[in-house]
Amino acid sequence: MAALTLHPDRLLPADPGVRSLARRLYQGVRDLPIISPHGHVDPGLLLHDTPFADPASLFIQPDHYVTRLLHAGGVPLDALGVGEPPMPEARAREAWRLLCAHWDLLRGTPVRYWFDSELAEIFGITSRPSASNADDLYDVIAGQLAMDTHRPRALLSRFTIEFLATTDDPADDLAAHRALRADPAVSTVVAPTFRPDRYLEIGRPGWPLLAKEFGDYAGYIAWLEDRRRYFADHGAVSADHGHLDAGTEPLSTGEASRIYRSALAGTVTSAEATAFRRHMTFEMARMSCDDGLVMTLHPGVHRGHHPPTLHRFGPDTGHDIPVTAEYTRSLQPLLEKFGTHPGFHLVLFTVDPDVYTREIAPLAGFYPSVYAGAPWWFLDNPASIAHFQHAITEIAGLSRLSGFVDDTRAFCSIPARHDMSRRLDAAFLAGLVTSHRLDEDEALDALTALVRDQPRKVFKL
Amino acid sequence: MAALTLHPDRLLPADPGVRSLARRLYQGVRDLPIISPHGHVDPGLLLHDTPFADPASLFIQPDHYVTRLLHAGGVPLDALGVGEPPMPEARAREAWRLLCAHWDLLRGTPVRYWFDSELAEIFGITSRPSASNADDLYDVIAGQLAMDTHRPRALLSRFTIEFLATTDDPADDLAAHRALRADPAVSTVVAPTFRPDRYLEIGRPGWPLLAKEFGDYAGYIAWLEDRRRYFADHGAVSADHGHLDAGTEPLSTGEASRIYRSALAGTVTSAEATAFRRHMTFEMARMSCDDGLVMTLHPGVHRGHHPPTLHRFGPDTGHDIPVTAEYTRSLQPLLEKFGTHPGFHLVLFTVDPDVYTREIAPLAGFYPSVYAGAPWWFLDNPASIAHFQHAITEIAGLSRLSGFVDDTRAFCSIPARHDMSRRLDAAFLAGLVTSHRLDEDEALDALTALVRDQPRKVFKL
Amino acid sequence: MAALTLHPDRLLPADPGVRSLARRLYQGVRDLPIISPHGHVDPGLLLHDTPFADPASLFIQPDHYVTRLLHAGGVPLDALGVGEPPMPEARAREAWRLLCAHWDLLRGTPVRYWFDSELAEIFGITSRPSASNADDLYDVIAGQLAMDTHRPRALLSRFTIEFLATTDDPADDLAAHRALRADPAVSTVVAPTFRPDRYLEIGRPGWPLLAKEFGDYAGYIAWLEDRRRYFADHGAVSADHGHLDAGTEPLSTGEASRIYRSALAGTVTSAEATAFRRHMTFEMARMSCDDGLVMTLHPGVHRGHHPPTLHRFGPDTGHDIPVTAEYTRSLQPLLEKFGTHPGFHLVLFTVDPDVYTREIAPLAGFYPSVYAGAPWWFLDNPASIAHFQHAITEIAGLSRLSGFVDDTRAFCSIPARHDMSRRLDAAFLAGLVTSHRLDEDEALDALTALVRDQPRKVFKL
Repeated sequence: MAALTLHPDRLLPADPGVRSLARRLYQGVRDLPIISPHGHVDPGLLLHDTPFADPASLFIQPDHYVTRLLHAGGVPLDALGVGEPPMPEARAREAWRLLCAHWDLLRGTPVRYWFDSELAEIFGITSRPSASNADDLYDVIAGQLAMDTHRPRALLSRFTIEFLATTDDPADDLAAHRALRADPAVSTVVAPTFRPDRYLEIGRPGWPLLAKEFGDYAGYIAWLEDRRRYFADHGAVSADHGHLDAGTEPLSTGEASRIYRSALAGTVTSAEATAFRRHMTFEMARMSCDDGLVMTLHPGVHRGHHPPTLHRFGPDTGHDIPVTAEYTRSLQPLLEKFGTHPGFHLVLFTVDPDVYTREIAPLAGFYPSVYAGAPWWFLDNPASIAHFQHAITEIAGLSRLSGFVDDTRAFCSIPARHDMSRRLDAAFLAGLVTSHRLDEDEALDALTALVRDQPRKVFKL
Repeated sequence: MAALTLHPDRLLPADPGVRSLARRLYQGVRDLPIISPHGHVDPGLLLHDTPFADPASLFIQPDHYVTRLLHAGGVPLDALGVGEPPMPEARAREAWRLLCAHWDLLRGTPVRYWFDSELAEIFGITSRPSASNADDLYDVIAGQLAMDTHRPRALLSRFTIEFLATTDDPADDLAAHRALRADPAVSTVVAPTFRPDRYLEIGRPGWPLLAKEFGDYAGYIAWLEDRRRYFADHGAVSADHGHLDAGTEPLSTGEASRIYRSALAGTVTSAEATAFRRHMTFEMARMSCDDGLVMTLHPGVHRGHHPPTLHRFGPDTGHDIPVTAEYTRSLQPLLEKFGTHPGFHLVLFTVDPDVYTREIAPLAGFYPSVYAGAPWWFLDNPASIAHFQHAITEIAGLSRLSGFVDDTRAFCSIPARHDMSRRLDAAFLAGLVTSHRLDEDEALDALTALVRDQPRKVFKL
Repeated sequence: MAALTLHPDRLLPADPGVRSLARRLYQGVRDLPIISPHGHVDPGLLLHDTPFADPASLFIQPDHYVTRLLHAGGVPLDALGVGEPPMPEARAREAWRLLCAHWDLLRGTPVRYWFDSELAEIFGITSRPSASNADDLYDVIAGQLAMDTHRPRALLSRFTIEFLATTDDPADDLAAHRALRADPAVSTVVAPTFRPDRYLEIGRPGWPLLAKEFGDYAGYIAWLEDRRRYFADHGAVSADHGHLDAGTEPLSTGEASRIYRSALAGTVTSAEATAFRRHMTFEMARMSCDDGLVMTLHPGVHRGHHPPTLHRFGPDTGHDIPVTAEYTRSLQPLLEKFGTHPGFHLVLFTVDPDVYTREIAPLAGFYPSVYAGAPWWFLDNPASIAHFQHAITEIAGLSRLSGFVDDTRAFCSIPARHDMSRRLDAAFLAGLVTSHRLDEDEALDALTALVRDQPRKVFKL
């Protein structure tokens, strides 16, 4: 039986001199509280504090990072319970066996790295998962999940999460957030995030139904403004946008109104709907200047690449695939208007790493509003993170980074993800020191800023 | 006279700890037989076993990797015998002198690395080529080429090549392959590869002539299906496609037939021909699902960038230049239809490294049919290979890599290329182990898989 | 007070073995004279030898590398004197204080690295700038600027610059250059560079005024040919071009004449103006073949991304942002016609690093005329330079690199920039040696070539 152990120097550089410095830097931030300003944890999880049902519903079913790798390796999604509620024990156990039996499919990925951390640190597992120990591991984890120590709130507290943002529909009444805020037993600040994508994509099926209470274009704008303020009043710090591109060309009010009416009538063209959505992204920046919500952009993903899987298992099931991103021209109208507005913050994320050097760093290196969002989704691995660190820092400096953003729906992976980031930031800064481009005191100061101060500043906490 | 020596640790990481581990891993696969599932060796070379004529015709004339570097450095292609049959000795020797005198032009390239390996290991050369020793080296090599030990079959055997795929025209009768298979003296499995590019590019001059026996569109499809089965019956494992883009949008049969007739009549437009070729790429995937041939794509090259050179020296003379590649949208129709078809395999190669992270890894990390093809052509160097290793593995895991593919027409470089790959894979995996992301036993297992098991699985050997 | 020290091994690799070799290589070229074949130093600076006014006008006001980083960090450009002549002492001192107080904004950037070098080596500064020592540093620097040792010519001589190219308008009479050449006290060769951008962009406001003396299209062409020869007669070695794209599709003379007349009449369309500019880029290559001026291309920058800043502070104020570059198709017409012309040299620069591997290296690896220009602008940092070194060398060899080009308007940064390049080239070559791909004697030879011989050859010095 192979052991599962967490080496204290994992992810640190191999050279003994650099490693020793990186270790020193890492020690300085290892235990700082976690700030998670953008993510996908369900507030109900923390409100109701219902115990996690079983290892499969905790680790497999909701996590498309895991299920896509198993699917690529030949495991059908239905055997993993994708898109389903928690399964009867026999099926849950079988899904867990499939994961353990295919443990080699995760080799070299951050998913494996996070799993190792979670299994060892949260569940005390000491042997590497495999077909032969799958049932034992299932029992060990399931046993702990039934204990109070492993209920959501206990874990939240153990993870020392200081701030946790969820992602919410503009129409949400935020009752769960209100209740959490009112509960003195929850010391973590849990904040909603305004995510209006489906309200801005007026050409999609179902949009007219969404819009039926807004009246005309002015009513629609007023509703959005109102809901943003409602979110801000309930602790939201940001509004998030995830469209296919980063276009922000504004329309005249007349043209916007005309297209809006077409959408209500169901006669809007695809080109009109795209133009309207780009206009609304511009409008969202305008509203951010008014209400102070930080604007975050997550563009460039072709969603639902495999329609048969989408139809059977729903969205977020592992086949969203990046496309080429463009920010320089796309964001020009928005930045011309709002780029130097006092207090406006725009955090740019990407799944196309080519734009880090070419576009995001130059933009963040001039506009006081623009920050380079931490590597997102497919880019949350050590190699891509190293590319990001160099690309942004060497062009725009360390102060233009967003700080780490986990953006996860896998609750138990939050500490492992932040720890990975701290280790990799320590490794990066140690490299700057050992090439004599930075002094050690500056590196420690910069690392502390990245972990603690920068997310607070960027997300206005 | 400078020495030419092959350091036993060449290409391994510099850090002593990582190097020592990488060396250990490499030792575990160094002597495994070579599997070469895609390349351009002429089967006639092995059938007839004719001795290589001279050093120039072996190392220079047919190898556009070498001749383009010399051409860029000011050496005219005609002095190198490009596009010619073997030359009289005086000219061959003069071409060889030009290579040796310009040895510095190869510095830092994999061509230099392969040459060092070939000269040392196959011909026992111990001094670095230069103007002053060019004639001596010529004589040493020419002398050995005249010996039985250096005839093609003897080298094939010495190289321990277990499987070698050639690249062949669909109309080829595969007589050479039949004869090789029937010959008990050849222990290497030599397989043809179906390469139908020129049959699918119906707007090119000469296509109507190619098509004259097919009759209508249905006849054309039937002919392709028939030839694919003929190839499969003769041991082919894959069909290869090298068009300008990776488009796969299908047409209705009516529209395809109409365009087909226009092409026969010589009135097809460029846009129609492109649409037809994309349709046919889709059709080729459909046929792969039927006949089991692995589909390999090599898109994204602007061929014949310098027409004066093309007209004088022919194709494949060093001025094919990459263009931007796109896979996410281009392959969507094909993958929607066939991406989860049992047994369908699609291996994606590229000369635009940007797509590794952005598109190929995410696709290979979901679709069970998709594999990331090893770095191809301009990317077959250590830096690009390291980028590929990280880009694919950290997103899709080690199991989605194709294993090494040499894709060469330089017969003697095959062992050096595979050895380079094994060293670089050992280096990469050693890095994962020393950053504590993988255990050493897993690294050795993964390396063995990459060298031996993965190409067998991906290419269905 | 933190110290400012320059470590003798700065920028060299961390591994002790590689570092020791890199140090040895670096020592071999450290003291070679500087060749600066492309840059933006004002020839009047050297002609008049006027002392630099103060630290702000030397280090801050004219340097958009510095001011954009401060601006991104929240410092208004007017507080830095951007776009102004030297300021009264109180304002100059205040600008300097802002720089020192925000010293942390430069962490991790090459700007910080160059500053450290300049402050230590030119001004003997030994403490790290900060709010608390800003005034002291100001006084120390200002005191030295008033001394003969720190006037422009004294620094030029101390920097051991052998060749220095400026950038000049085609209509310039080059009187300053004539006077400098005639002055026996100036041992540096100071050469003009022909930069005709605004004459080729015929759709821009003001162009008809520029063109009023040319007469028709033929007169315009004749004027350009004449001015190029005038520049060549005054020591120019190159003509530089900085347009939005690298297009080179030629027009017929009739079509070019027609568009030219439209531009004179003020009725030219944007598409016509672009077509004409691409045609003229082709024409410039034709003229280069005649007059021998090296052609350098710097495409791919969206200029003046933030119009409010452009209007208030002028061009070159930190908000020029790169866009996607394309060379394969864009340069094909030019290279088909002139790519193998004897003596034609084309140096390709980029701010889109994606084209290094995909396009520039393959082009430079075939065409004897094409060289890969050193990393430019946003790419002049260690990470981007390392990417460039590998990308070009491993595909096209060391001989296709341009050698270092500083391209700076920050006079005092020239030695630091060249020193950085020499260190990074030594580091890169040491890596090739320690991975046993190159012998040490070859590495030293290659490094010397990169520093001394290659720029002479590429720029025909």
